[in-house]
Amino acid sequence: MYRSNTCGELRLADAGKEVTLAGWVQRSRKMGGMTFVDLRDRYGITQVVFNNEVDAELCESANKLGREYVIQVVGMVAERSSKNPHLPTGDIEIIARRLTVLNRSEVPPFTIEDDTDGGDDLRMKYRYLDLRRGCVRSNLELRHRMTMEVRRYLDGKGFLEVETPMLVGSTPEGARDFVVPSRMNPGQFYALPQSPQTLKQLLMVSGIDRYFQIVKCFRDEDLRADRQPEFTQIDCEMSYVEQDDIINLFEGMAKHLFKELRGVELTEPFIRMPWADAMKYYGSDKPDLRFGMQFVELMDVMRGHGFSVFDNAAYVGGICAEGAAVYTRKQLDQLTEFVKRPQIGAKGMVYARVEADGNVKSSVDKFYTQETLQEMKGKFGAKPGDLILILSGDDVMKTRKQLCELRLEMGRQLGLRDKNKFACLWVVDFPMFEWSEEENRLMAMHHPFTHPKDEDIPLLDTDPAAVRADAYDMVINGVEVGGGSIRIHDSALQAKMFEILGFTPERAQEQFGFLMNAFKYGAPPHGGLAYGLDRWVSLFAGLDSIRDCIAFPKNNSGRDVMLDAPSALDVAQLDELSLAIVSPTED
Amino acid sequence: MYRSNTCGELRLADAGKEVTLAGWVQRSRKMGGMTFVDLRDRYGITQVVFNNEVDAELCESANKLGREYVIQVVGMVAERSSKNPHLPTGDIEIIARRLTVLNRSEVPPFTIEDDTDGGDDLRMKYRYLDLRRGCVRSNLELRHRMTMEVRRYLDGKGFLEVETPMLVGSTPEGARDFVVPSRMNPGQFYALPQSPQTLKQLLMVSGIDRYFQIVKCFRDEDLRADRQPEFTQIDCEMSYVEQDDIINLFEGMAKHLFKELRGVELTEPFIRMPWADAMKYYGSDKPDLRFGMQFVELMDVMRGHGFSVFDNAAYVGGICAEGAAVYTRKQLDQLTEFVKRPQIGAKGMVYARVEADGNVKSSVDKFYTQETLQEMKGKFGAKPGDLILILSGDDVMKTRKQLCELRLEMGRQLGLRDKNKFACLWVVDFPMFEWSEEENRLMAMHHPFTHPKDEDIPLLDTDPAAVRADAYDMVINGVEVGGGSIRIHDSALQAKMFEILGFTPERAQEQFGFLMNAFKYGAPPHGGLAYGLDRWVSLFAGLDSIRDCIAFPKNNSGRDVMLDAPSALDVAQLDELSLAIVSPTED
Repeated sequence: MYRSNTCGELRLADAGKEVTLAGWVQRSRKMGGMTFVDLRDRYGITQVVFNNEVDAELCESANKLGREYVIQVVGMVAERSSKNPHLPTGDIEIIARRLTVLNRSEVPPFTIEDDTDGGDDLRMKYRYLDLRRGCVRSNLELRHRMTMEVRRYLDGKGFLEVETPMLVGSTPEGARDFVVPSRMNPGQFYALPQSPQTLKQLLMVSGIDRYFQIVKCFRDEDLRADRQPEFTQIDCEMSYVEQDDIINLFEGMAKHLFKELRGVELTEPFIRMPWADAMKYYGSDKPDLRFGMQFVELMDVMRGHGFSVFDNAAYVGGICAEGAAVYTRKQLDQLTEFVKRPQIGAKGMVYARVEADGNVKSSVDKFYTQETLQEMKGKFGAKPGDLILILSGDDVMKTRKQLCELRLEMGRQLGLRDKNKFACLWVVDFPMFEWSEEENRLMAMHHPFTHPKDEDIPLLDTDPAAVRADAYDMVINGVEVGGGSIRIHDSALQAKMFEILGFTPERAQEQFGFLMNAFKYGAPPHGGLAYGLDRWVSLFAGLDSIRDCIAFPKNNSGRDVMLDAPSALDVAQLDELSLAIVSPTED
Repeated sequence: MYRSNTCGELRLADAGKEVTLAGWVQRSRKMGGMTFVDLRDRYGITQVVFNNEVDAELCESANKLGREYVIQVVGMVAERSSKNPHLPTGDIEIIARRLTVLNRSEVPPFTIEDDTDGGDDLRMKYRYLDLRRGCVRSNLELRHRMTMEVRRYLDGKGFLEVETPMLVGSTPEGARDFVVPSRMNPGQFYALPQSPQTLKQLLMVSGIDRYFQIVKCFRDEDLRADRQPEFTQIDCEMSYVEQDDIINLFEGMAKHLFKELRGVELTEPFIRMPWADAMKYYGSDKPDLRFGMQFVELMDVMRGHGFSVFDNAAYVGGICAEGAAVYTRKQLDQLTEFVKRPQIGAKGMVYARVEADGNVKSSVDKFYTQETLQEMKGKFGAKPGDLILILSGDDVMKTRKQLCELRLEMGRQLGLRDKNKFACLWVVDFPMFEWSEEENRLMAMHHPFTHPKDEDIPLLDTDPAAVRADAYDMVINGVEVGGGSIRIHDSALQAKMFEILGFTPERAQEQFGFLMNAFKYGAPPHGGLAYGLDRWVSLFAGLDSIRDCIAFPKNNSGRDVMLDAPSALDVAQLDELSLAIVSPTED
């Protein structure tokens, strides 16, 4: 062992002990005849002192140390004369007796400090240096503690962690698979799992009635801001349960994690909000409930007064931002620009201030009497000083989603999205299907294995679009941290589902035959849930992106810039795989 | 919840309680006016009774149940008149009041019993039914407990579990990679990691000084009996440590696992055997020390007596099988056939019996005096009743390996390889390199990142083949359950190593530049170890193959016969990946 202690553990009580420390040189400074070196490791920073009068040669060596040199120091723990109350080790220092340089370092390309001068690209290229920064390392520590707690909790509830294979079959339904050519089976490919969904269902068929796995999953998607081609799921499944059993158990787990990892006691049951309400009041299936500003629909109040924009709209609705009547014309124009950005796509925004005397002053005053505006004010329960923002459009759902973006932006501007506040809920009663314009058919909103609500099963034949599912998402602070459903365990119902989704019986059999066959041999009722580990850790760590809680993330082009992967293969390797590179077909 | 209790937990003390059970029909039998159903779940079997006189209709329903039907039963716990002492629940039965069929089952293709009538292929195709068998499920339970214990142990020692990426760069050095075409980077490929070796070394550079991960690894090899294309490693790495620190810590972990999972207390330190001794005395770098039969070299005794086979051999050596002089001529002929099989490749075998009077009777008596044979007997310390078996050859190492096979076979035949006995050791002081006939160059015996022994570093220039490495394997019962090494942390030494391995500086930079660059920024001394999880579980479970401790294993052609993977892709999918299938080039 190169050290007797870490750089984080020595205290005043250790004074007088001879110790050996090893670590990185954070910084060093000469003051008079003394050289002070801050020595850093994973556990903290300890000050090491070299005294030129006592040992000039040793001190001279210390003066030559550069940033990030790896050194070993033998010395005595001593009380500091000028203590540093900001460091846990700030009461002591090490009077060095011996110094060994274990490895030198070139000058690092950015400073190894929480507040670094390195940009994103540089930090990713030198991720191994970036990870030396305490603020990044602490995310990995949190991730470790989180997975330990999850396992402890689920193990205590009788769950078995079962590893499912990474090399599985490709299923074109759903997102795009990453595939793996098989050398032993030329022309054939494995796929990397998008989730162990069907495999965990097979584990239920096999009688493992409480399964979990913390597992890598893969999706070959065009990467949006906060997606990674590989991500980690806490994947769970249970047999002989109904929706409430699953929700209760995993709500319990969420509360346990909040308590253990964030010290937050959540005593109240989480709200369970039907999907239809989430869309109506927040324009989102993952509403951020840290703040109010529920949508108010204004079709009855605001239509029919000659303002053609509203008169011709299928939806007119707004939010009331408390105390925001102080917004300037410039700020309001910026909000209008915000909702008109192509990513949001609103045509415009109407606003109305509630003035000190209670009068409403709006951007469309010429179309509305004060009486109507007062009626509108009443709908919001708005008070003097409040600001009302209204959007409209001819597609109800689209307009709600635009209003959702506006609500979130106002929440941000008004400081209502506090990272240390947590608003948890379940969104339930999802629709079974959603219409895909692209595919011109119904698609499964969750996945084709989701159980419809028993009372809606007759609608499968008459009005499938109206069928609700036994599906549920857990949402925290506007982030979907997990979701799941009760699954179909009956092969006839599963076959019907594939039929509604446009599968021929042959294609259903070809792609999911293994599952439907398994259902013939005594599949128990079952259901489950998957939590996104990366999202949970980001949430607990207060990160804006999941990237910083991943040791070696990929960039938006799916590249690992540190490893410089992916890269070209040797021709021999391609040959062995019976593959050739071809130019993509023109679109 | 479909049940109030599991099928494994009710006892006599529960008599009188109304309970709801759910599970699978293991078997049912009619006796007089009663129908008895054995109801099974993951936790056990409980007997359910239907009485025709009390409720004829209910009993009639019970009579219609088939094997593996999924049912729910409501009833009263009652004391059995004829108790079953072999079942934990054997004192009670459930007097059924209600029966619900939750799902029917076709007749399963094999019996769901520990002693099943299903062959390997059938069991793999219907693995979800195979997993219902208690003896298979218990392997998965053991695997779960093992990973829980490993994590508990390492977490307690300050290790952080860090997930490293699955989509990395391909490195042609070593075994063959599985590769993953990148759609976003046409013509480029990721590789699946053969191990997180370089990534965990980067974590050491980043200051995470105690890392572990239980992680899937991938090797595209032609599959031998007990290999899987994907397997699971307990991967560990530490900084600021020397070989002894790593060995001590992971020996401690091994002992902990033996105690917790097998109830075996291993109090003695594990033997540390130099690789050269392992080869000399056991002809293997993973000797099975459950039994003796150490090799005895006989070159000095047996050469020069006119027996040309021995006279011309570079190696003559044998083993002494205690009490095996009773072996018949037929048995000895079979042993000779055994060593002459092409997989082993010996030319023949010489044997010698020690008779009751102490005389030695050998198959080569005409060449040797009794005096010489007595001298040989003395070398083995053989007693009357012992059997001496001797092999010879012109390649020392090859002959030792043949003798190793013979030793293992004799151990098997004499019942010395008891699955409930455990002999653990470390093999240390491995050679740094081994000569590859195929590549006509030195290859790294472990991998190119292994640190040579400090005292052997000068030999790198003069006699690289003689250099020993700071490498170590843990061996239990003849199985290598793990191995590791101290790593190079100096970029100059690492560059020299690549040079000896025949890399040009350019190719070394191209393939491992990320690591060598990282070493320039203060890499600490480090080393580690990886345990094979599958092997550990097999060992603890007493399995002959790792396959049965894997939920969904692949067969020898790398196929998952249940999922029918790998399989062909849609042309559209290939197109998106800029790939075409070509016929393999003729060899």
